[in-house]
Amino acid sequence: MPLEVRRSLVIEAAVWVFANEGLAATTVDSVAEKAAVSKASIYGVVRSKDELLEVAAREEFDRFVNSLLASQARHAQEPRLARARARFAAVFGYARERPHGFAFLIMLRDNKVGPVAALAREVRRTLTQALASDMAVAGMATGTVAEILATVLIGMAEAGVRATEISPGVDADAVVDLLTGITSVGLVGLDKSILARLVPAESDATSGVAGDSSKTPSNLKQAASTQD
Amino acid sequence: MPLEVRRSLVIEAAVWVFANEGLAATTVDSVAEKAAVSKASIYGVVRSKDELLEVAAREEFDRFVNSLLASQARHAQEPRLARARARFAAVFGYARERPHGFAFLIMLRDNKVGPVAALAREVRRTLTQALASDMAVAGMATGTVAEILATVLIGMAEAGVRATEISPGVDADAVVDLLTGITSVGLVGLDKSILARLVPAESDATSGVAGDSSKTPSNLKQAASTQD
Repeated sequence: MPLEVRRSLVIEAAVWVFANEGLAATTVDSVAEKAAVSKASIYGVVRSKDELLEVAAREEFDRFVNSLLASQARHAQEPRLARARARFAAVFGYARERPHGFAFLIMLRDNKVGPVAALAREVRRTLTQALASDMAVAGMATGTVAEILATVLIGMAEAGVRATEISPGVDADAVVDLLTGITSVGLVGLDKSILARLVPAESDATSGVAGDSSKTPSNLKQAASTQD
Repeated sequence: MPLEVRRSLVIEAAVWVFANEGLAATTVDSVAEKAAVSKASIYGVVRSKDELLEVAAREEFDRFVNSLLASQARHAQEPRLARARARFAAVFGYARERPHGFAFLIMLRDNKVGPVAALAREVRRTLTQALASDMAVAGMATGTVAEILATVLIGMAEAGVRATEISPGVDADAVVDLLTGITSVGLVGLDKSILARLVPAESDATSGVAGDSSKTPSNLKQAASTQD
């Protein structure tokens, strides 16, 4: 197996094992088992579990940041609301494509010391700068204020992803619209149709928007055809 | 030492060690050392590390939920905006009073299996119900929709706390106002004075609201007297 292939195989397995077993419980053995390679193969890629964590963190952070920056670039010419929506949608898209990678990043985020903490700070800086440049266009904020706003927006996206994981049958697109709506007009001014779209009424007996208790078969069809 | 005292001493030490060393890396030995009691003393309180985690999780979750519900009860008669602000402020108050407890809860939140996961679900249900009853008054949402909104609001509060940890000198009260403002009127309609209050202008060379680049010595004095 070419070294590059083995390398990405090992790193991919490491992300999966770190995300599922935790940073401390993960061993080189369990990564070797997951990657279906020998332990010696892993030591051909990295020298230690610590280096494996560092390399995997760097790769996953890069992937996440690139995905967000690429999305921002693609939507740069759109109106403010569309850009705001695209930002949340990019985080959701990442979490859907790489759920283990996303879980791994959340684990890494609060590391306070060591090389991974430095990486996390670098990622935060990059995302903040990107957001700040977009918000500066809107005349909003720069520097630390932008950093705070970026932290809050990323926290909202993360919570939105969590909501789709916690409650089965939640429409991810509607959650993206919810987050966009909250940052646009607040929770109270929100278009009530967004709340109605969050949960197909028949997926959960206790769900629904106050006052909307109709459960028609046509909703089922709608839910089934939810676009990706 | 009376058993109740030893018990709370051990649990408090466990929360601290779990929060600082991670769930997997924590051992009964390290908790015994932190609590300055013998290992045998710990086994007088719980039978295993797993039970220690479960008991500590239960206590910390209860404390957090009680703190939020008590705050909600105290502010029940206030206008909607004040209630929304009090909700965020309660999370911030908890994180300030018990930073290790708050970090521990965040670790526990995403547990997917076992007794701690069941506990986390129970906590989510309790908070959602409390929020839903408040939102039902405002005619907003019930059931799963309320659960999604609760998840997003708690995520915002958590991100706000993180912002105060990441950026030194950030005014926590202003962050609470920021979160309240976002949920009330959105980010764009936000009172710009809130952004200006987030960071005392001289605490960070790169900070500030767009257009506000003045850094006068008088601000320094202000920053030094930032209230807790």
